[in-house]
Amino acid sequence: MESNRREIEVMANILSSNDRQADLNRAHFRKSNCLAINVIGSPGAGKTTLLEKTLPLLMLNMQVGVIEGDIFTSKDADRIAAYKVPVIQINTGGGCHLDSKMVNKVLPEFEGKGIDLLIIENVGNLVCPADFDLGEAFKVIVLSIVEGDDKPAKYPVIFRNAKVVVLNKMDLEALTDVNMDNMRQDILAINPDIRIFEVSCRNGNGLEEWTSWLKQEVGNYQNN
Amino acid sequence: MESNRREIEVMANILSSNDRQADLNRAHFRKSNCLAINVIGSPGAGKTTLLEKTLPLLMLNMQVGVIEGDIFTSKDADRIAAYKVPVIQINTGGGCHLDSKMVNKVLPEFEGKGIDLLIIENVGNLVCPADFDLGEAFKVIVLSIVEGDDKPAKYPVIFRNAKVVVLNKMDLEALTDVNMDNMRQDILAINPDIRIFEVSCRNGNGLEEWTSWLKQEVGNYQNN
Repeated sequence: MESNRREIEVMANILSSNDRQADLNRAHFRKSNCLAINVIGSPGAGKTTLLEKTLPLLMLNMQVGVIEGDIFTSKDADRIAAYKVPVIQINTGGGCHLDSKMVNKVLPEFEGKGIDLLIIENVGNLVCPADFDLGEAFKVIVLSIVEGDDKPAKYPVIFRNAKVVVLNKMDLEALTDVNMDNMRQDILAINPDIRIFEVSCRNGNGLEEWTSWLKQEVGNYQNN
Repeated sequence: MESNRREIEVMANILSSNDRQADLNRAHFRKSNCLAINVIGSPGAGKTTLLEKTLPLLMLNMQVGVIEGDIFTSKDADRIAAYKVPVIQINTGGGCHLDSKMVNKVLPEFEGKGIDLLIIENVGNLVCPADFDLGEAFKVIVLSIVEGDDKPAKYPVIFRNAKVVVLNKMDLEALTDVNMDNMRQDILAINPDIRIFEVSCRNGNGLEEWTSWLKQEVGNYQNN
């Protein structure tokens, strides 16, 4: 009981200390006029592939920077580096999520590069990253529809906390048992204000719509 | 710095207290002659569907019990209950993994039911459950091949700690960019002793092989 109380207290401390640094990160992004987004999804949802497809469409209009969060390896950062954008890998070394201090530590690397949009790809995990504010303007969920339409109800915290969800791998819809009506209804039941995009990174469907929306978000942020 | 040292200390305490209870659970399973397995995978890897397909093949030969770990909802336990096996839902209420104390708390529910095989389906998460011993005989990974062949190298801890991996959704292989040779090589590079099964819960391929192996494991355990 004693140890349990101590554990809860320490977890609360971790979260509140994370929130304090997140607010400082957010002030830094505001000052730099840089929209920062926190991209969250299960392993294999297609977060990095979505970035690969999104970057070429964005780069004509703005300067993009990327932070790649992973437990081990720099596989994702290597893929993004091919697009000639500033990219920094953060390895958590076993940790299941990024936190605001890890992000703060790498921000100097983007200094003076005129970044309009900083895309932070979190560790592949639909649970833990939901609790850790990184100082982003908003959270983006990437969900592979192959994961099934029961996922929003089973992982509601992240759906409650996100501004937008990109439903990916739509090209596989007919080959799975996913019910897209249930999927959309369940998402909106948790968060009626969330924006839903349906895309296929494989055949390109829906990417234009998603990217246009994101460009507009950068514009709105920078004009505020 | 001070707070950081305290956090590390508390996390170490949590893990070692978990390990102590896990050993007690393991002794309980040994005494009951019940093989307990800990099934781990990302959200939507197909853990519950694999159980649904495996149960009818096992139930002719043995008594099976199921613990369903989820953050919220009893969706998975409801699905399993349809198979008329004893099933208990554990909701972690936000927690990203099961721990040995949660499992211990529900063990009395299986008492006197002559369970030969207890299948513990963990929370959908490829990261955190890898660190928490529940007292199981071994860990089973379920990985949807649609997640991509880079997943073993990116999430090595669980592949190092598991005895077997079930590669699911093989029916979608031709429609994705997954390279199964890379997948198998990377898995075996991390853990040369791991057993790999390739299945499709949709068309039934590979389920017979996987189930026969599991039956044999129960036999081996009970004859030891």
